[in-house]
Amino acid sequence: MYELLKQNLNRHIKLNEEEFGLFLKRLSVKTYLKDSHLIQSGQTCKYTYFVNKGLLRLYDINKKGYEKNTLFAKEEWWVSDLYSFHSQKPGAYFLQALEDTEVFQLSKPAMENLLLEIPKLERFWRILHINAFIAQQERVMDMIAKTAEERYRDFIEKFPEAELRISQRHIASYLGITPEFLSKMKSGLKH
Amino acid sequence: MYELLKQNLNRHIKLNEEEFGLFLKRLSVKTYLKDSHLIQSGQTCKYTYFVNKGLLRLYDINKKGYEKNTLFAKEEWWVSDLYSFHSQKPGAYFLQALEDTEVFQLSKPAMENLLLEIPKLERFWRILHINAFIAQQERVMDMIAKTAEERYRDFIEKFPEAELRISQRHIASYLGITPEFLSKMKSGLKH
Repeated sequence: MYELLKQNLNRHIKLNEEEFGLFLKRLSVKTYLKDSHLIQSGQTCKYTYFVNKGLLRLYDINKKGYEKNTLFAKEEWWVSDLYSFHSQKPGAYFLQALEDTEVFQLSKPAMENLLLEIPKLERFWRILHINAFIAQQERVMDMIAKTAEERYRDFIEKFPEAELRISQRHIASYLGITPEFLSKMKSGLKH
Repeated sequence: MYELLKQNLNRHIKLNEEEFGLFLKRLSVKTYLKDSHLIQSGQTCKYTYFVNKGLLRLYDINKKGYEKNTLFAKEEWWVSDLYSFHSQKPGAYFLQALEDTEVFQLSKPAMENLLLEIPKLERFWRILHINAFIAQQERVMDMIAKTAEERYRDFIEKFPEAELRISQRHIASYLGITPEFLSKMKSGLKH
């Protein structure tokens, strides 16, 4: 059941069985049904989430009232409203399940305790945080510098099963285009 | 000479004399004359900088060709183009000395070595990075939600000697207003 989490931690650090057991004790397992929300905009985000099975989308609502998808978190992703989680102030994002989703959730105090109990985790979360920061900056830069078609290709490369698991509406919102334009663009790509 | 750095590290971790000595060995001391650049947009940022004495400004140039100040780094601040430094890809920012400035500079490989030699530093840089991320997000939110006058008051509270050390032009650019509007606003505040 916890194999995916173990594999994920082992990407950056080596935990022994005892340490991994401690880690498991601090988190809670929860299943969110499709369409339900894990985080609501305007509230303080209590948890950071590891997706064990399923799919989540992080989004906000722009000034014109449109939903804007920021990222999709599938299996082995950590996701949260990082600003709200770390500052413990109200955040701007929503986090919603696009499929029935099993997450391992870790509260801010649980994370702080784990960092004291297992100092190796400092490295893990430092690296994760820097990677999230880099990804966020690159997304902003790509929105400016790349065409929608290039962004679509990049997205499918990173998430090959996206077309099977995510609706056209949500993919379009992630790319910053309309579903109609996405459809037209894709029919153009086939030629 | 290194008292300020020691004080800064001790805010989050405790290094013994030997560890602190190791830290010093990995960095280099450099003085940049007023107006000279430490980082140029379009280049890959080699160092992260600790300001021991002096003042730097981090800025970029927007689409209309105007310089936009993002932050001022005075004594005891760490500053870099974090995206470029961590990704080792070209960055968008300039970093310039507003006074003759003495920095302790640390290259990316030197930082990676230090993290392996002194694992306690993982915690230090994790915390610093999260704080920088929170500050950046709050700056973006303040630009939307607060008036220029509120932003000016916040800025002076955090940096009381700003009016003595930073030109009106640079303060205005940081606040996102014209120097003329800053001047008008300040004469209004006095009444």
